[in-house]
Amino acid sequence: MSSSSRPTAALLLIGNELLSGKIQEANQKPLAELLFRRGILLRRVVTVGDVPEDIQLATLELKQTHTYLFTSGGVGPTHDDITIEVIAKALGTPVVTHPVLEELIRGRYKERTTESHLRMAMVPRGAVLEGSNGAVIETADASEWPAVRADNVWIFPGVPEAFRMKLGILAEYLKRHGVGHAMHSRAVLTQIEESAIVDRLNEVVAQFPNVSIGSYPKWFDPNHRTKVTFDAEDESLVQAAADALIRLLGPDARIQS
Amino acid sequence: MSSSSRPTAALLLIGNELLSGKIQEANQKPLAELLFRRGILLRRVVTVGDVPEDIQLATLELKQTHTYLFTSGGVGPTHDDITIEVIAKALGTPVVTHPVLEELIRGRYKERTTESHLRMAMVPRGAVLEGSNGAVIETADASEWPAVRADNVWIFPGVPEAFRMKLGILAEYLKRHGVGHAMHSRAVLTQIEESAIVDRLNEVVAQFPNVSIGSYPKWFDPNHRTKVTFDAEDESLVQAAADALIRLLGPDARIQS
Repeated sequence: MSSSSRPTAALLLIGNELLSGKIQEANQKPLAELLFRRGILLRRVVTVGDVPEDIQLATLELKQTHTYLFTSGGVGPTHDDITIEVIAKALGTPVVTHPVLEELIRGRYKERTTESHLRMAMVPRGAVLEGSNGAVIETADASEWPAVRADNVWIFPGVPEAFRMKLGILAEYLKRHGVGHAMHSRAVLTQIEESAIVDRLNEVVAQFPNVSIGSYPKWFDPNHRTKVTFDAEDESLVQAAADALIRLLGPDARIQS
Repeated sequence: MSSSSRPTAALLLIGNELLSGKIQEANQKPLAELLFRRGILLRRVVTVGDVPEDIQLATLELKQTHTYLFTSGGVGPTHDDITIEVIAKALGTPVVTHPVLEELIRGRYKERTTESHLRMAMVPRGAVLEGSNGAVIETADASEWPAVRADNVWIFPGVPEAFRMKLGILAEYLKRHGVGHAMHSRAVLTQIEESAIVDRLNEVVAQFPNVSIGSYPKWFDPNHRTKVTFDAEDESLVQAAADALIRLLGPDARIQS
């Protein structure tokens, strides 16, 4: 699969809880799925703790070397929520209160609004709010909470339920801006073990240089011992590559439905 | 929590399937838990695809800047399993067949042994095999499959069932070599929302500089809305910090059992 012309992406996961094993990371997979479906190449995922210099260095590096950088985590109201200020520093810009976010927060908490709530209205100067219609939001609308984008850096929350809401906004943005292309996928399952199909697999790999082919052993699955995946922008090519392997593997091999 | 004297670690996850969202990553959390329990600071996790230059650059950088580097993935028999050769290149050493691994493989597959099987006996020259007794293995023993360590790089398989077996070996190694210290943890649960406890939380953070304190909102959990975690090498300090927060939060707050 040619990747030279595809937009690229990186994901920066922020939070001590990921590095101490306190929680199972849950945001990478849904973002990766969305980007993959849109033909955007997620090239690198980096996890760092709540350490300003680690976040800042990773932001700078990943932002410069990818079309998009997504960050996850560290945007709440507490002492360990330092993502906004550190990203602002990496971008060389101050932190300011975004008037639309402030209005949304005051509208939600009314007279109970605290300084801690208002910390969540802070953004790097120049950041825009992306809405669920795929466009920049200019006025507060209580029915939706927008996503913060600073240049090519999308600053997402770490709480998985909140993160997934932002993915809906990103999907609309990519669609509206015509970014990427749809990818097509097939998977072939077989009871033959991985090491026994290598020669046949290599034959298909050589025959279909424009199809990305992956092979995954399953140890304790009664339904198959090896899964081979095929991905490319051209659906007929993907199907042809999967069919070619099935012919070589014999009657046990089948397309995963 | 002072981190200057603690051994550090990085994890390099290798595989296109992680970046395309085909599978949920499952190795980071159990490794992170083990390292955390031993007081080893996991500082960074990087995920790259099956791309030689990405693996090589990440290996070089992470190996030089951490006490330990663990890699996961890309060590099977197929075309996309390139971890061993790329790590060898990063270490400036050729790939050789390890005689003990070859013996183990031939013992398992007997006359069915193929070239593909034997690819799994390849290691960077100078690599050693670590066994489940916490020491280097010099002779083949069919009852156990050792872990490959090349200098400070532990090369683990990506299949989660296999990865977890290697963690048992690592745990014995760390114990036998007296690496790290046990960490102690407490968690406080409350129904009060995170933004409403910030002032009280900051008070405890300031009072206990040697305790690592994290705060995590839960959106859809009926049992608590905020969880605050406390970690340090000194158990009495951890307990004192948790007790201090409970006193400030009032009767609803409680230690997670």
